[in-house]
Amino acid sequence: MIVRTETIDERIRAHMDRMQPDKIVVVVSHTSEKLCLPKLEIHKKLDNIIYIVPDGDRAKSLTYCEDFWETMLRENVTRRSLVLAVGGGAVLDFTGFCASTFMRGIPFIYVPTTLLSMVDGSQGGKTGINLYGTKNIIGTFTEPLAVMRNIDFLPTLDSKQIHSGWAEIIKHAILEGKYLYHIVQNGIPDLSDTETWMDIIRKNIILKSSIVEEDFREAHKRKLLNLGHTIGHGIEALRFEDEDVTHGLCIANGLYWETLLAEELGVCNSKTTQNVSALVYPLFFKIQWSKSEVQPMLQLLLHDKKNHEGKIQFSFTKEIGNCTYDYEVSPERLLEFLEKHAIADQVNED
Amino acid sequence: MIVRTETIDERIRAHMDRMQPDKIVVVVSHTSEKLCLPKLEIHKKLDNIIYIVPDGDRAKSLTYCEDFWETMLRENVTRRSLVLAVGGGAVLDFTGFCASTFMRGIPFIYVPTTLLSMVDGSQGGKTGINLYGTKNIIGTFTEPLAVMRNIDFLPTLDSKQIHSGWAEIIKHAILEGKYLYHIVQNGIPDLSDTETWMDIIRKNIILKSSIVEEDFREAHKRKLLNLGHTIGHGIEALRFEDEDVTHGLCIANGLYWETLLAEELGVCNSKTTQNVSALVYPLFFKIQWSKSEVQPMLQLLLHDKKNHEGKIQFSFTKEIGNCTYDYEVSPERLLEFLEKHAIADQVNED
Repeated sequence: MIVRTETIDERIRAHMDRMQPDKIVVVVSHTSEKLCLPKLEIHKKLDNIIYIVPDGDRAKSLTYCEDFWETMLRENVTRRSLVLAVGGGAVLDFTGFCASTFMRGIPFIYVPTTLLSMVDGSQGGKTGINLYGTKNIIGTFTEPLAVMRNIDFLPTLDSKQIHSGWAEIIKHAILEGKYLYHIVQNGIPDLSDTETWMDIIRKNIILKSSIVEEDFREAHKRKLLNLGHTIGHGIEALRFEDEDVTHGLCIANGLYWETLLAEELGVCNSKTTQNVSALVYPLFFKIQWSKSEVQPMLQLLLHDKKNHEGKIQFSFTKEIGNCTYDYEVSPERLLEFLEKHAIADQVNED
Repeated sequence: MIVRTETIDERIRAHMDRMQPDKIVVVVSHTSEKLCLPKLEIHKKLDNIIYIVPDGDRAKSLTYCEDFWETMLRENVTRRSLVLAVGGGAVLDFTGFCASTFMRGIPFIYVPTTLLSMVDGSQGGKTGINLYGTKNIIGTFTEPLAVMRNIDFLPTLDSKQIHSGWAEIIKHAILEGKYLYHIVQNGIPDLSDTETWMDIIRKNIILKSSIVEEDFREAHKRKLLNLGHTIGHGIEALRFEDEDVTHGLCIANGLYWETLLAEELGVCNSKTTQNVSALVYPLFFKIQWSKSEVQPMLQLLLHDKKNHEGKIQFSFTKEIGNCTYDYEVSPERLLEFLEKHAIADQVNED
């Protein structure tokens, strides 16, 4: 069972009984400390070390790593201790990186509290922080000891966060092209429909697992999961100061723009672009770069981890349920695309 | 063959041919840049990125990591690039950590140039940096693509550096207790005796490999390699400002003091302590802590990665060729030992 019926408390307790950790460190964000931690028993254990990071990507910095490592040192955390990350993807990425490098790796558990981190960030062993505006540039491939998902956290999320998770669900649906694609075409289910949510989360995890298991270190097939993420990360870096621009919103837009690029390169036909657009735009607002953002955007894309010899490497949708990876696009061709779809600068004020 | 007959240049060239890296980054220390890099062909390739760090442990800091990562970002280093570390253990540890976390891991090769790094630091996949005076507290377990050892570098080393490597050779000899122990009892061979050196280096690598292969992540048997390193690291941290105090000197002393502690705890008899002393003190000067250093020393030992539940865990020599690990010593017992062997403060000025 991937989404279990035991409560998270029961699962944590089982781990404690087995591991007998000498210390427990709980990493939370401001929001997850307020909304999610009180739902867990560990909240009541006063001898736990609670480490609070800012919400969102601000936690994923070397400054916080150093501070967290220093805290672990000061509190005599050892390899027999246990670190619990309770929060969204940023909390998990940050905690996973810090724990996987402290003493060359101490055990950690993920308790994802956002939809996005339940269907994506908590799975696949990628940890990481950002540096000089480049996302996840420093990190490790390390699996947590366990991932404890629970849909009881869904009601703590606002619509923006549900949408953010939904973008990755759309990506998985495009990759899968069957059962999940059909559910996702119905749009976002009501939060009270726990059956459908359990089903969706389970299907997402199965799809991602099947890809990650084949290629943990992203040498080939795992690159499919980068669908929408090249342009998506570019948009995210470009608009990082805008709090309304979530990771999911950028990825949803990335999925659309990359499919349009694929269409222009002859990788897919216009029907595929329409299908992707039909999943994305009833739910997300469109983000478009302005003329003056073309060059910064190109620079961001040139720094993508997936690049090779100055060529930007894309994963593309050939059709729903049939995607490809390692498709190289030259900077010149990409510049042409970015210029073609750039809007005038003043329009970009909204 | 572990110590190969091909030159390092030939081996590097073979890797280049196979990998076709899009970029080569060479990390050196001030000293290895001056003395060792000119011995290699890669020195002449002007399009390589040469990154220079200070000599010794000063390189192993988060500040240098950040600067190095920033350089790699700026120079568009990718997962298809190759990082070469040319230097002693500190250069290798630093480079291994930075490369194993940049983009979640890019390929790196070790070219150890000191005796210590040839017989120890280059092998076993441990990477790391120091933080707040705690050695190797942040790091990963990541194997380099290749380790290229060459005794041609030995003549670049001064006596202090040869001694520093010799301390780890003594440790390996104590663990092995047979062939290597007999050679090591003869003392340090002349540098011109390349046959004996090749033999010693080869035997050291075989011994360490056999232990590491059984237990890469140091869950059990690999802990044997920590022999002398608990008190050794304590002494090293205590005297980090003294440039004459090398890692090897501290380990050599650690081997002696830990055996004396083992004797006092009834783990070994006085003959074993004499045997260890006979290997160490004809070659190394004795380091002893002063009364005022007892508490700082205890605190340093309490922060050791190998600890569990506030107990300090030692690897001990029961007799030459028969060692043990996970031997717990309470802080109280250790304090007693440290106090017993502390010298008066003014004597410690030399």
